Amino acid sequence: MEKTYRNIDENIVAHTKKLQEFVRQHSISQTGEGVKECAELLRGYFEELGCKEARLVPEKYAPVVYAEYDAGAKKTVIIYMMYDVQPAEDIELWKVPPFEGKIVEMTPFKKVLMARGAVNSKGPLVAFLNVLEAIRQVDESPVNLIFVAEGEEERGSVSMAKFVREYAHKLKKADSVFFAASCQDENGLAEPTLGSEGLLYIELETNGAFWGRGPTEFGVHGALKLIIDSPAWRHIKMLSSLVSEDGNKIMVRGWYDNIQVPTKQDLKLLKKGYRKSTPAAKVFDPEPFKRSLKIKTFIDDVTDKEEIIKRLSFGTSFNLDGIWGGWTGPGSKTFVPHKVTSKHNIRFVPNQKLNDLFRKIRAHLDEKGYKDVKLRKVDGYQWALSSHKSAIAEATYAMFEQFGVKYAIYPPVASILRFSPAWPAYVFTGKPLELPIIGGALGHGGRAHSPNEYYVIEGAKGHHGRVYGLAGVEKSMATILYNYAGKRPGKIRSKLFREA
Amino acid sequence: MEKTYRNIDENIVAHTKKLQEFVRQHSISQTGEGVKECAELLRGYFEELGCKEARLVPEKYAPVVYAEYDAGAKKTVIIYMMYDVQPAEDIELWKVPPFEGKIVEMTPFKKVLMARGAVNSKGPLVAFLNVLEAIRQVDESPVNLIFVAEGEEERGSVSMAKFVREYAHKLKKADSVFFAASCQDENGLAEPTLGSEGLLYIELETNGAFWGRGPTEFGVHGALKLIIDSPAWRHIKMLSSLVSEDGNKIMVRGWYDNIQVPTKQDLKLLKKGYRKSTPAAKVFDPEPFKRSLKIKTFIDDVTDKEEIIKRLSFGTSFNLDGIWGGWTGPGSKTFVPHKVTSKHNIRFVPNQKLNDLFRKIRAHLDEKGYKDVKLRKVDGYQWALSSHKSAIAEATYAMFEQFGVKYAIYPPVASILRFSPAWPAYVFTGKPLELPIIGGALGHGGRAHSPNEYYVIEGAKGHHGRVYGLAGVEKSMATILYNYAGKRPGKIRSKLFREA
Repeated sequence: MEKTYRNIDENIVAHTKKLQEFVRQHSISQTGEGVKECAELLRGYFEELGCKEARLVPEKYAPVVYAEYDAGAKKTVIIYMMYDVQPAEDIELWKVPPFEGKIVEMTPFKKVLMARGAVNSKGPLVAFLNVLEAIRQVDESPVNLIFVAEGEEERGSVSMAKFVREYAHKLKKADSVFFAASCQDENGLAEPTLGSEGLLYIELETNGAFWGRGPTEFGVHGALKLIIDSPAWRHIKMLSSLVSEDGNKIMVRGWYDNIQVPTKQDLKLLKKGYRKSTPAAKVFDPEPFKRSLKIKTFIDDVTDKEEIIKRLSFGTSFNLDGIWGGWTGPGSKTFVPHKVTSKHNIRFVPNQKLNDLFRKIRAHLDEKGYKDVKLRKVDGYQWALSSHKSAIAEATYAMFEQFGVKYAIYPPVASILRFSPAWPAYVFTGKPLELPIIGGALGHGGRAHSPNEYYVIEGAKGHHGRVYGLAGVEKSMATILYNYAGKRPGKIRSKLFREA
Repeated sequence: MEKTYRNIDENIVAHTKKLQEFVRQHSISQTGEGVKECAELLRGYFEELGCKEARLVPEKYAPVVYAEYDAGAKKTVIIYMMYDVQPAEDIELWKVPPFEGKIVEMTPFKKVLMARGAVNSKGPLVAFLNVLEAIRQVDESPVNLIFVAEGEEERGSVSMAKFVREYAHKLKKADSVFFAASCQDENGLAEPTLGSEGLLYIELETNGAFWGRGPTEFGVHGALKLIIDSPAWRHIKMLSSLVSEDGNKIMVRGWYDNIQVPTKQDLKLLKKGYRKSTPAAKVFDPEPFKRSLKIKTFIDDVTDKEEIIKRLSFGTSFNLDGIWGGWTGPGSKTFVPHKVTSKHNIRFVPNQKLNDLFRKIRAHLDEKGYKDVKLRKVDGYQWALSSHKSAIAEATYAMFEQFGVKYAIYPPVASILRFSPAWPAYVFTGKPLELPIIGGALGHGGRAHSPNEYYVIEGAKGHHGRVYGLAGVEKSMATILYNYAGKRPGKIRSKLFREA
């Protein structure tokens, strides 16, 4: 194993170059730009690494890159990756061109890769490929690997459930799933993910054409409100029926019926932690959180840390993300609009079910007299949760402990508290696979979806301990695999963790 | 008088050219483009016509062009004009460039002027100038004239009340006010205006910065709705409090208190008409109205014509013109917005008062707990009404009768039923001037504020009678002045009304 770590250190320059090469390849799933080329590039990497069956599986917007690596080992791990990225909007705010793979200094880090996709999620993806290359040069992989690299994550992973059903006969060989992601925050605290909250994203549209009242095809002169009904006011009344006066309680019949969290185990984890983890209730500090987001107070003026984490971890919400309709330009154009549309993201938890909630919203609208209001599902994930005591999770905690990294284990659905608010974990934890998952190697990056996205290449000391760079990320991934295969490296000699 | 009509016929080509010249001069008050130049051009016209004191009176966005024409007559009439125009948006939808003053055929009219400002309101403005020129070449004007040409009408006439106060010592010499406008519809029916409904245009903004809850400076991640309040939901609840479930009744305390319409006289006018006018209740046909606006049904499924006109003539309304906030782009960006804004036009009638209604909305918000919601006045007019039996009105009806034109007299505040939904009539009918007004020479145009705005140059026969072209417009204006001065031309020999 030591040979693997040395190989990583010796080749870190080449490893970094490979990552730069990969972020230079556009792969914007919203527009399709470079997606196919990126998928082909990735398939080539898998072939070079000795994978069998490296192939593109065509899906709605972008293919899944699928590959198997047979090490003749006992255990098999699915590595979930995503190769698509968000568009690089607000180009003028970027300090470097977003698709050139520039390495820059960003205090306290001497070297970060600043590029679209750096942390989300090409950095961790290439890190894992580098790990396999390093292991194969000195040894053999301790586990068999199945790579599932998605190209539609930024479009809501719309094909993943279908892909998993179709590939279930292959995927069911696996014993667990690892999400190739870095989970350290800027202070060095590691926060792995054991699942995801549920997300349902809908649009509601009130339209005179559906209603049969008011203007039906286009907006008309504002003075006509005297004699015609208003689809816009109808939208307001319809929306108002969905939530309580304070906007915080969901008034849809049966909404809260199936909620089963928090379990006793959840609360114990929150308060006491597990193994050597720092309890989440102790590690979360609401003040810097509020300051950075310019939020003065929480719902109901809650100040108790544990209560805040509980609401974030076990709550359900119905948000108004956006609304538009009618005349929104300057001045005083008078106008009775024929339609108004709003967008809503809904968060939900075990054992609420996505389709059941969708049906309940429809039933609410029908019952309140809004049969004509269009309810559209934009996308959604089922929630996912994996035991915090699975073998792959234990292997990950052991890695944190071997590296001396402070870590906190949040309840699986507490998405916003971690690096990854929502991801399609449910395709693995749900039927037919029902596999344990964890996401979270070492390493840190930030500004995903924003200008100047970065990924740390050369680490630095943080408030909670070392924030690891690329070599550390790779070593941590290798360590998880060794731990999982039962080949515990024990307490690793600390100099091996010095980064190149 | 016959000489005047002949002079108009003989010079109609030159008159048309002058109108083309005037529409070629941009005067877009929203952007300021050409406004000053247009005002100067107009002042030059007044000087050529022998006016005294032709001057530009600087106002907020554009000067008033003020001029006096002293004919040594007994009576004095203020001619209200507007020289500003809307921008010409959607250029690709225009059949001709909007500022070139092209004459085109538009069935059934052999010649219309197609240009921005053609009907609203440069056509009628230049027609009146042509009338004065014609009269002066053969005779002397039967009345003294005071010209008030506004350049801010399309910006809500924001300076007119102030201008009238400052010029009251001059304006009070006048006996009545005539709005230089054409009031025939496409079928030849004439619908003069005796006033305007009241209009209050407001914006409402709910913002975390004012509220002190939820996101205060920028939107945050949608999953945070679990622990933060939503200014967007607050806006929905606030709006919902303003109107009844069906969106049609205004729930603001005291809103309906001062309503005094319809008077008995109003109802009599509606049902029986006045002089030889066709009663409004008989002339209004809701079916083509609904068809052209793609409206299937009116409020409360009202079908009775008289009831529809009553609601349009004497009603008050609180419209939702537009609303926007948060993520309105494609896909499923999850977002808790820090603010939502909506626009509202409010129509009101005698004796509701603009400032009182504004205060009542503020009081409603405060009472319902929305002290933090910002209420902004964008602009507004007080309602105006002038007796349908004033001398200037009688002079106008006499003209319709002399020309054999079918006409209908709507109650003064029934704005939408006429050619001009709202205009600042109140500055003349209200204190300090309290003058009778009427608007409406012959002539027809359409598509004001839209592509392909037009003004009929050569008339044609319509369903209700002749739709007059420019020569007819000018003769009708001259006739109103002669009638008003007591120099009734009697039944004018019909060939004089044939147009050049």
